[in-house]
Amino acid sequence: MDMIQVGLLGLGTVGSGVALTLEKNREWIEACIGRPLRITRALVKNKKDYGHLELPDDLIITEDIQDILEDEDISIVIEVMGGIHPAREFILQALQKGKNVVSANKDLIALHGPEIVRTASENQVDFLCEASVGGGIPIVLPLQKSLTANRVEEIAGIVNGTTNYILSAMTEEGLSYAEALAQAQKLGYAEANPASDVGGLDAARKIAILTSIAYRANVTLDDVQVEGIENISARDIQVAGELGYVIKLLAVAKKMDDGVVLSVHPAFVPARHPLAAVRGAYNAVYVVGNAVDDVMFYGKGAGSFPTASAVLGDVMEIAHHINEHICGKNPLLATDAMAKVADASQWKSPYYFRLIVQNRPGVLAEISRTFARHGISIETMRQLGEEISAELVMVVYPAAQYAVDCVREELQALDSVERVANSIRVFGEISHE
Amino acid sequence: MDMIQVGLLGLGTVGSGVALTLEKNREWIEACIGRPLRITRALVKNKKDYGHLELPDDLIITEDIQDILEDEDISIVIEVMGGIHPAREFILQALQKGKNVVSANKDLIALHGPEIVRTASENQVDFLCEASVGGGIPIVLPLQKSLTANRVEEIAGIVNGTTNYILSAMTEEGLSYAEALAQAQKLGYAEANPASDVGGLDAARKIAILTSIAYRANVTLDDVQVEGIENISARDIQVAGELGYVIKLLAVAKKMDDGVVLSVHPAFVPARHPLAAVRGAYNAVYVVGNAVDDVMFYGKGAGSFPTASAVLGDVMEIAHHINEHICGKNPLLATDAMAKVADASQWKSPYYFRLIVQNRPGVLAEISRTFARHGISIETMRQLGEEISAELVMVVYPAAQYAVDCVREELQALDSVERVANSIRVFGEISHE
Repeated sequence: MDMIQVGLLGLGTVGSGVALTLEKNREWIEACIGRPLRITRALVKNKKDYGHLELPDDLIITEDIQDILEDEDISIVIEVMGGIHPAREFILQALQKGKNVVSANKDLIALHGPEIVRTASENQVDFLCEASVGGGIPIVLPLQKSLTANRVEEIAGIVNGTTNYILSAMTEEGLSYAEALAQAQKLGYAEANPASDVGGLDAARKIAILTSIAYRANVTLDDVQVEGIENISARDIQVAGELGYVIKLLAVAKKMDDGVVLSVHPAFVPARHPLAAVRGAYNAVYVVGNAVDDVMFYGKGAGSFPTASAVLGDVMEIAHHINEHICGKNPLLATDAMAKVADASQWKSPYYFRLIVQNRPGVLAEISRTFARHGISIETMRQLGEEISAELVMVVYPAAQYAVDCVREELQALDSVERVANSIRVFGEISHE
Repeated sequence: MDMIQVGLLGLGTVGSGVALTLEKNREWIEACIGRPLRITRALVKNKKDYGHLELPDDLIITEDIQDILEDEDISIVIEVMGGIHPAREFILQALQKGKNVVSANKDLIALHGPEIVRTASENQVDFLCEASVGGGIPIVLPLQKSLTANRVEEIAGIVNGTTNYILSAMTEEGLSYAEALAQAQKLGYAEANPASDVGGLDAARKIAILTSIAYRANVTLDDVQVEGIENISARDIQVAGELGYVIKLLAVAKKMDDGVVLSVHPAFVPARHPLAAVRGAYNAVYVVGNAVDDVMFYGKGAGSFPTASAVLGDVMEIAHHINEHICGKNPLLATDAMAKVADASQWKSPYYFRLIVQNRPGVLAEISRTFARHGISIETMRQLGEEISAELVMVVYPAAQYAVDCVREELQALDSVERVANSIRVFGEISHE
C-alpha cells in the first residue's frame, strides 16, 4: 500500500521525540500498520534552529503552515507546538481540509476540545489526544473504551510532574518548599516561571479533559476548584509522615448526587494507598468505577519519548483507520453535551488541621467546642511543644468543605489561636498506620 | 436503532456479574452505544440451579447451545463458562455463524487463541478478550493500541490473585505458606485444589496471552518456564523484608537479543518498586517499552463485577463496530506468526541465596570460591546464628540462570553446606534500602 504521509507541527522536545522514535521503531511500526509511514514535513518557527537535529533526509522543514495544509498527500497532522494560538487555528484548518489530527496540547483541548471534536466529526476525520494527559501513560483510551461500561465514581490523578517532584523531594530529602522548587528548576523539572504547575492550573486542565472523557460530557476549566502546593510546609510533610500519610497534589473528579465535583488540591494520601507510592516525575491516574472498583494507571507523565509513545500510538490507530476506511467514526470526546457540575461546598472528607496555639489551660476545650459546633468529630489530636506557643495537630472525621471553611475562620478569630497553619483534605479513608 | 441482542454462555460468578452490571448501568450503556442492548438468552448446565438469581423477565435460560447459535437476532456471544471443552467448540461455531464473541477464558485463549482469532477474521466478526488477563484492569487494549509504537522490552505481571493473597498474608501477618494457603481457601481466594494457581500455571497462561499481544506473534504455554510459590518459606519472606524486598510471584516476558524469554517465578521485588505495593487480591502489569519507559496497570484481578466491567467494555466496543459496520476489522491477537522464544539459561539477574551451613572456619571462603568460579560477584553476605548450624544469606550481582543452577548444585555437594534453602531471582535492580 501507499505510504502514509504525516505533517508535524512543532519540532521541540516532543516533536523531535516523535521524529526520532518513528525512525528508531520504523520497521516495527510499518509492519504493524502494513505500509510505510513518514513524517514528510515539519513546521518550525525558525528553520535555522534545527540544523543540529539528526533528522531524516527526506523530511522538509518549513516555516509556512500552508506547505502542510496544502499538501494533499499528508493525511495525518501531529500538533505538538503547544499554546492556544495559532495551534487552534492550524488544527481546525487541518481538520477542515480532511486531515486526521493527533494532539498532545492539553491547554488547547481543555479550552477548545468540543469545537475541535465537532470539527473533526463534521469532516469525518479522526482527532486523537492520548498524550494530552499523563504523557505516555495510556489513560484516555482505556477510560473511553475499556472502562466505559462503568459509571465512574471518582478519578484522582497525580498528573503534574513538577509538583510531584517537589513534594517527593520535600518528603524524601526533608527540603523546604523553596529548596525543592529550586532543585526542580535546576534539574529541568520546573520552569523558570512555575506558576501554572505549582498553582495547580496544569493539573486542572488535565482533570477537565479526563472528566469530559469519563462522563462523555464537557466541563470547562472554570468548573475546577484549584489550590496549589505553595502553602505546603516541610512541617506539614513531616507531620503527615508521622500520621501515616504522604502529601500529594491530586486532581479529582468526584461524582455526587447532584453532579460531579472537580478540584485540584493538596491531599493527605494514606501511605498504603497506591497513589502514595507515585514518586518524583511519575504520574498516575486512579479511577473508581461502579463495576471495576478501583484501577490505577502509572508511568512517566512527561518527557520527549514517553509523550512520543502516546502520540505515535494515536498515529498508528489512525493509520489502521485509514487502511480500513473508517476514519471519523470514533469520537473520543463529547461534542456538545455539558456535564452537571456539583457544588463543592457539600463535599465531605476527613481533614487534617495544624494550628499554632497558646499553651494554657482551656485552649483545647475551646478549640474542641469550635469543631463540635459544626458537627465535626475529632479522630486524632496531638499537642507538640511545651513553650508558650504549642502546635496542635488534628485529623477530623469526614466534614463538608463549607463547615471546614467556617471552622477555620472561627479558630483564627480565637484569642488562644495564633494561626491556623494549614488545613488539608484527606483522600480516602483515615490512615491507621 | 434496533436492539442489540446478546447470548451469554455461563451464568456463574462472572456471567451473573455481567447480567447484573448490564441491568444496573443499562441507561448509561445504552446512551453510550445509542441503542438498546439486552442479554436475551443464557446457556446453563442445569436450569434449576438458577431460580434464585434476580434476572430480567425477558431473559430466556436454556440448556441447549443451539438455542443461541440458531438465534439470528443474537449478534454478540459472551463466553464466560470457562474450561476448554465445549467452550472452544461453542466459540468457533458462534464465529462461523457470523456472531461476534467476547471471552474471559484465559485457559482457552492461551491454548487455542490463534485458531479462534483466525476463525473470527475469516468470518469478518470481532473476537475480544480484555477480561482474560487481569480481571477488570484494562491491559489487553492498552497493550495492543496505546503502547503499540513501542518495542516492548519487558512485561512483569502480578496476575494471579491467589498467590498474591498468600504472599501478602505471609508478609503482613507473618504466616507460614500452609497457614496462608488455608486462610486463602477459607476466604474464597484459593480453590480447594489450588495447584494451577500456586504452581504458577494460571499466571503462565496470562503471560502467554500478554506476550502474544505485545509482540503480535504467538507463544505457547510450553514456551513458559514455570515455578510456583510452594517453596517460599516464612523465613525467606522475613529475610526479604530485612534486605529491602517483597517476594511476589511474577509472570515475566523479557526481550533478549535472540528472542523473548517467558517465565513465571517468585522474585525479590525492591520495596520501592511499584509492583511491591500490589497487595492481596490486587493484580498489576508492569510494562517497559523502548519509548514510553515504564508504565503500570493496577486493579482487581478477578471477581464478578471487575471482570464484568472488562467483558461489557468489549461488548460496547463491538456494539460500536456493529453501528458503524466495521466488525472484523480489528484483530487483537496474531493469527499465525510465531514469536521467537529465547533460551532462558542466559538470562541474567541478581539473585538471592539462603544456605544452611556448618558454623566452622573456612566455610565462607569455600562458598565464596564456588560463586567466584562461576564469575558471580557477591553484593551482600550475612551470617546469622552462632550454633553448630548457621544461616547464610546472600544477594549476588547479575548472574545467568545456568550459572546459578550450577552453583546451587556445587554448593549442595559441599560438606560444609547442609542445604541450599532457596535461591530466588531479584527483579530489577539490587535494593539499597
